Amino acid sequence: MGMVGGGIGAFIGAVHRMAAALDGEIELVCGAFSSDPEKSKVSGARLGLPAERVYGSFEEMIKREKRLEPGKRMQFVSIVTPNHMHYAPANMALQNGFHVICDKPLAFNMKEALALEKTVEKTGLLFALTHNYTGYPMVKQARQMIRHGELGAVRKIVVEYPQGWLSTNLEASGQKQAAWRTDPQRSGIAGAMGDIGTHAENLAEYISGLRIVELCADISTFVPGRQLDDDGNVLLHFENGAKGMLHASQISAGEENNLNIRVYGEKGGLEWHQMEPNTLLVKWLDKPMQVYRTGVGPLYPEAQAHTRIPAGHPEGYLEAFANIYRNFAVCVRAREEGAAPDPVYLDFPSVQDGVRGMQFIERVIQSGKSAKKWLAF
Amino acid sequence: MGMVGGGIGAFIGAVHRMAAALDGEIELVCGAFSSDPEKSKVSGARLGLPAERVYGSFEEMIKREKRLEPGKRMQFVSIVTPNHMHYAPANMALQNGFHVICDKPLAFNMKEALALEKTVEKTGLLFALTHNYTGYPMVKQARQMIRHGELGAVRKIVVEYPQGWLSTNLEASGQKQAAWRTDPQRSGIAGAMGDIGTHAENLAEYISGLRIVELCADISTFVPGRQLDDDGNVLLHFENGAKGMLHASQISAGEENNLNIRVYGEKGGLEWHQMEPNTLLVKWLDKPMQVYRTGVGPLYPEAQAHTRIPAGHPEGYLEAFANIYRNFAVCVRAREEGAAPDPVYLDFPSVQDGVRGMQFIERVIQSGKSAKKWLAF
Amino acid sequence: MGMVGGGIGAFIGAVHRMAAALDGEIELVCGAFSSDPEKSKVSGARLGLPAERVYGSFEEMIKREKRLEPGKRMQFVSIVTPNHMHYAPANMALQNGFHVICDKPLAFNMKEALALEKTVEKTGLLFALTHNYTGYPMVKQARQMIRHGELGAVRKIVVEYPQGWLSTNLEASGQKQAAWRTDPQRSGIAGAMGDIGTHAENLAEYISGLRIVELCADISTFVPGRQLDDDGNVLLHFENGAKGMLHASQISAGEENNLNIRVYGEKGGLEWHQMEPNTLLVKWLDKPMQVYRTGVGPLYPEAQAHTRIPAGHPEGYLEAFANIYRNFAVCVRAREEGAAPDPVYLDFPSVQDGVRGMQFIERVIQSGKSAKKWLAF
Amino acid sequence: MGMVGGGIGAFIGAVHRMAAALDGEIELVCGAFSSDPEKSKVSGARLGLPAERVYGSFEEMIKREKRLEPGKRMQFVSIVTPNHMHYAPANMALQNGFHVICDKPLAFNMKEALALEKTVEKTGLLFALTHNYTGYPMVKQARQMIRHGELGAVRKIVVEYPQGWLSTNLEASGQKQAAWRTDPQRSGIAGAMGDIGTHAENLAEYISGLRIVELCADISTFVPGRQLDDDGNVLLHFENGAKGMLHASQISAGEENNLNIRVYGEKGGLEWHQMEPNTLLVKWLDKPMQVYRTGVGPLYPEAQAHTRIPAGHPEGYLEAFANIYRNFAVCVRAREEGAAPDPVYLDFPSVQDGVRGMQFIERVIQSGKSAKKWLAF
Repeated sequence: MGMVGGGIGAFIGAVHRMAAALDGEIELVCGAFSSDPEKSKVSGARLGLPAERVYGSFEEMIKREKRLEPGKRMQFVSIVTPNHMHYAPANMALQNGFHVICDKPLAFNMKEALALEKTVEKTGLLFALTHNYTGYPMVKQARQMIRHGELGAVRKIVVEYPQGWLSTNLEASGQKQAAWRTDPQRSGIAGAMGDIGTHAENLAEYISGLRIVELCADISTFVPGRQLDDDGNVLLHFENGAKGMLHASQISAGEENNLNIRVYGEKGGLEWHQMEPNTLLVKWLDKPMQVYRTGVGPLYPEAQAHTRIPAGHPEGYLEAFANIYRNFAVCVRAREEGAAPDPVYLDFPSVQDGVRGMQFIERVIQSGKSAKKWLAF
Repeated sequence: MGMVGGGIGAFIGAVHRMAAALDGEIELVCGAFSSDPEKSKVSGARLGLPAERVYGSFEEMIKREKRLEPGKRMQFVSIVTPNHMHYAPANMALQNGFHVICDKPLAFNMKEALALEKTVEKTGLLFALTHNYTGYPMVKQARQMIRHGELGAVRKIVVEYPQGWLSTNLEASGQKQAAWRTDPQRSGIAGAMGDIGTHAENLAEYISGLRIVELCADISTFVPGRQLDDDGNVLLHFENGAKGMLHASQISAGEENNLNIRVYGEKGGLEWHQMEPNTLLVKWLDKPMQVYRTGVGPLYPEAQAHTRIPAGHPEGYLEAFANIYRNFAVCVRAREEGAAPDPVYLDFPSVQDGVRGMQFIERVIQSGKSAKKWLAF
Repeated sequence: MGMVGGGIGAFIGAVHRMAAALDGEIELVCGAFSSDPEKSKVSGARLGLPAERVYGSFEEMIKREKRLEPGKRMQFVSIVTPNHMHYAPANMALQNGFHVICDKPLAFNMKEALALEKTVEKTGLLFALTHNYTGYPMVKQARQMIRHGELGAVRKIVVEYPQGWLSTNLEASGQKQAAWRTDPQRSGIAGAMGDIGTHAENLAEYISGLRIVELCADISTFVPGRQLDDDGNVLLHFENGAKGMLHASQISAGEENNLNIRVYGEKGGLEWHQMEPNTLLVKWLDKPMQVYRTGVGPLYPEAQAHTRIPAGHPEGYLEAFANIYRNFAVCVRAREEGAAPDPVYLDFPSVQDGVRGMQFIERVIQSGKSAKKWLAF
Repeated sequence: MGMVGGGIGAFIGAVHRMAAALDGEIELVCGAFSSDPEKSKVSGARLGLPAERVYGSFEEMIKREKRLEPGKRMQFVSIVTPNHMHYAPANMALQNGFHVICDKPLAFNMKEALALEKTVEKTGLLFALTHNYTGYPMVKQARQMIRHGELGAVRKIVVEYPQGWLSTNLEASGQKQAAWRTDPQRSGIAGAMGDIGTHAENLAEYISGLRIVELCADISTFVPGRQLDDDGNVLLHFENGAKGMLHASQISAGEENNLNIRVYGEKGGLEWHQMEPNTLLVKWLDKPMQVYRTGVGPLYPEAQAHTRIPAGHPEGYLEAFANIYRNFAVCVRAREEGAAPDPVYLDFPSVQDGVRGMQFIERVIQSGKSAKKWLAF
């Protein structure tokens, strides 16, 4: 694996590296960790990489790695830069024969997203987007329960993603994470709705198996001086007639990273909270609620296959993230070996999911400015 | 106290009686428990009332009680009938000099609500509406914390009221509670939004001290054959610029009576769940969350005064309901004695709150049918 | 009902009155509210009793009430005094033909307890002890689940009753509740173990249906100057070979009233917490945990019959306490009417339970002082 | 790192490997994964090791690695075998100049434990024992809060470790984990008390900073045919006069891995649950409880330094385990570089902690058979 971005001090780069390392199946072999070659060098050295494989730019990395022998060069590229720097390295890597795993959202805007989708289709290479929350075993259990009709037809979905860390003008302090996320030049047209709203949208569609077809959004910026949205409330219509609400916020003071979802069907409902991820509440009409737990009892194979340790030994964010990487690695290896991967691992967010995410961002911002109630997705 | 409605088998009548009895300060002395005089008689007998004070109709009750000596006759009327039968007895009781405590929503429609408001103002008598959830000590603590600025200016409010008991066509089975609530002749223009949506609206305004000024609603009926809404999702704008979401549902399968609210201000947030009512979560920017509890530590006098027993001895729904009755009784007695009641007890939902609730019902149903995004409240 | 003790400012007297009033089936008709006749008079007046039925002593109350006509006099006596004042009024009431409901523990010492047991047997009158925690619906559900073998043979029981309110020398401040509970002249040989340890013992035996046969106790007094125990840890052996732990404490700083129990059988386990009393967790070998809730789904009739309002409308401490009073009242009425009460209500703690509680107190204190490991109960 | 044990199918070997890999600072370079050389070879191959560094026995591994150049050979040995195979490889590794990290309990019996302690002292090499639960940030926060006197003098400690997975005779099915843990030839004199009781003992002493000085144990075997204990209840006395209870069980049906602890001091109490490890409840006398969370607000540096990702991104069992490995690796590297490690990382369980654990096992089993109440630790 070669990495683009993720130099020292970056949050998400370190996460990707730990996720990739966990199962001992992926090795970081090279990187272009910063747009500043000097910084890249320092980061690479700290990560224990040989100097010759620490590059000053992603262009250099892709060109030089391509010249190495197949067994020696990186097998895929991991892209962990801010949004405005997803498309160029992803596209170039694909064009040069490297598979790609990329942080979300897919791109800076819809145009880039569609172009990237085309490149993936054209090259036939593997592409994964790290909507990491779909990597949790209990999220997979939820998806399978709905897919197998255990709750009946879905009627209502409530998905929330409140955070509080941008309640003040943190970007003014120069805090790196806050700075790029609130900067339209690097983040795109959306702030909170792009950064975390897309996770919520992706989770709702992943678990329910239903697509959003219409939405009505109320988008706000509460912190004075901020250029992008820091809060959004959205009404949703799903393809089967189900109704929904989505809200995402970075000014919900005191909230940590409280992504959660509830899905109600004709026969029962389910509830999952990212901050207690090994628990899935399943509610029934006039029967006791059940508490499904990672590793306990009869679970769908999709849930079981994404669990590493016995019940009661909590698996967290990094393990879920590692599931995306592991599945991607399984598919890369199967591809190299000309084998079909175990279908249970054929499960990571795709470029198409990424396009839907970008579409969500564009629609939700557009709806926020519109006096019309419903906007087709 | 004389009661209108609440014969055997009624849910809310029994609740009102227990709430009134709890503190030993209110005595049920007469009643017109059913529109069927025979049923009223049977109910009254079971409740241990002397036959001569069990009446065949509320008209009879009000007329005959008025003829009794002041010290002997009922002091106020409690109205626990379905919505279409609130106005007539309430109005007649007031016109004949009796104070009134009435179940919510205030009336069958806005016209009745405004007429009743006028009667209350004209007669100068006491009127309470049983938005009972405002009777919980931790709800009062939440209100006071916001009022005293502990959270800073409010930015976002999320209020939810999911239930699941109408997930099937229960009214077709003849179940009494389901039958009238889903019947436009008895319930009015709204189903879930009137029955429980108004509680959510009232709670949000009570705790935040802010008024809703605009809303955008998505109103649904999921159960085939049902005539009124059983689910609603609403975007809210509050007077100070705060944004909000409200959803109420009776088809959220597996949910019991899960009213809950979160309010986020500039400095912190709070969260309260009716099903665990003695806990109030208070969240801060980068400080540990605090768990306020009924009876523990320094609380506002308004919270302390509505607590009967020491911390850790859970007080529930009936105690909160009894707080509305107790406060009303304190005010009735103060009125009779020509004294000013302790201001800490001057706290029960008013006829004006009831008018706002009716306004909410009308607006939310209207918005549900409108292609326009925002509707002034 | 006539009351002995429970004058103004007493905690438990007010609780008994609210519990008795809740269902509108028991009327407080007289009382001897204090050993000081003047205070008794004031308390009675505030409670709205006619002066002639407020007595200066329990002896006076029992004598004078007995002279009233059967339909006019009190039907039973409620005793809410400190421990040293249970036996005398209870015994005298029974000897004069009045049923008795009495706060726990049964008496000041074992001798009084056994004498009272004999009086109850001799007179054939009804006697209830307010181990109120057995009044919760989910406690009854737990008992029935075990009784019906749903968990298999019981192997282990863990029962805890931590409180923190006596972490400091509160009695030195003159606080009334603390003062008598820590005074050997009024409380007896035990402090925390008598006040709350007996509740834990009673709950464990009630739910499991098993009797303690041996125990080994470690009893402590942590607060300097305190005369009685404020903490105790106890190993238990049950009659069927099950093992257990019981701990009760009033110096567990920060705990409110955290009575809780876990019972493990061959097939599953259950867990109940008094502070969230409407929830019963039922755990299984390799199946999802179930969350039984008051009012939800198929419950044993014993649980259902002790529930007043629909699921999700929390019933609390007073409602559970009221269940003891209601059941006692049902039995008193059945006795008067010569009828057999519905067996579902034939469930309140008896004088025999009280004798076991006193035995527990004596054994646990004795064991605390002994170098021998096991002491027969 | 070279590994002893942990071949395919072993639970704890995989855990150690993931924990070591997570931070990208430790590389598995060789191993003797099974006492069966063939199985060792297969395991090593699957782990991607070159065949020449997969050994048929730990003796072979230690001898052959020693002959490699310092920069090429393993730097330390990780021992993940059953208890009876800890001493020999650990002792031999140390005698040959390799640092050792070893699974708990330290050894098969006290004699081995003391011998190993001597070897560590004699060689002056680094030795870590994986009492992994001390690796959680909130456990470190708890320890520091007590150390800094925030709760006042400790009075009471309740530590529990219930599991249910051995509720049936699982070892009879040949399940590998169950088989060796219930076999006196491989596990030693204790079953549950050695496997998990020692974790509870270690956690209590780590958090409180207090040593157990006396204990009184009730030790049971519930499952017919089982040779070792599967349940134990223990009364504890700590050096400062604090009292405690410890129970550990593998027949608590329906429990997963529910290690938890409560510590009560004069001024407050704290509570931590391994299954929700990022939360630390801190309770106060008459002030709202605080919910400390990994990554939120002002925490002690010791807690902060063991956190990898922002608040609300749950870190779990593997991350805590990885903290032990990371700290050990930091110290190994500092040793090699002749530098002093940052004291915040000088925190992993030592051989002395291991000796205390063995002492606990011996005493608790001895007490279980004794009619004497207290046994000096």
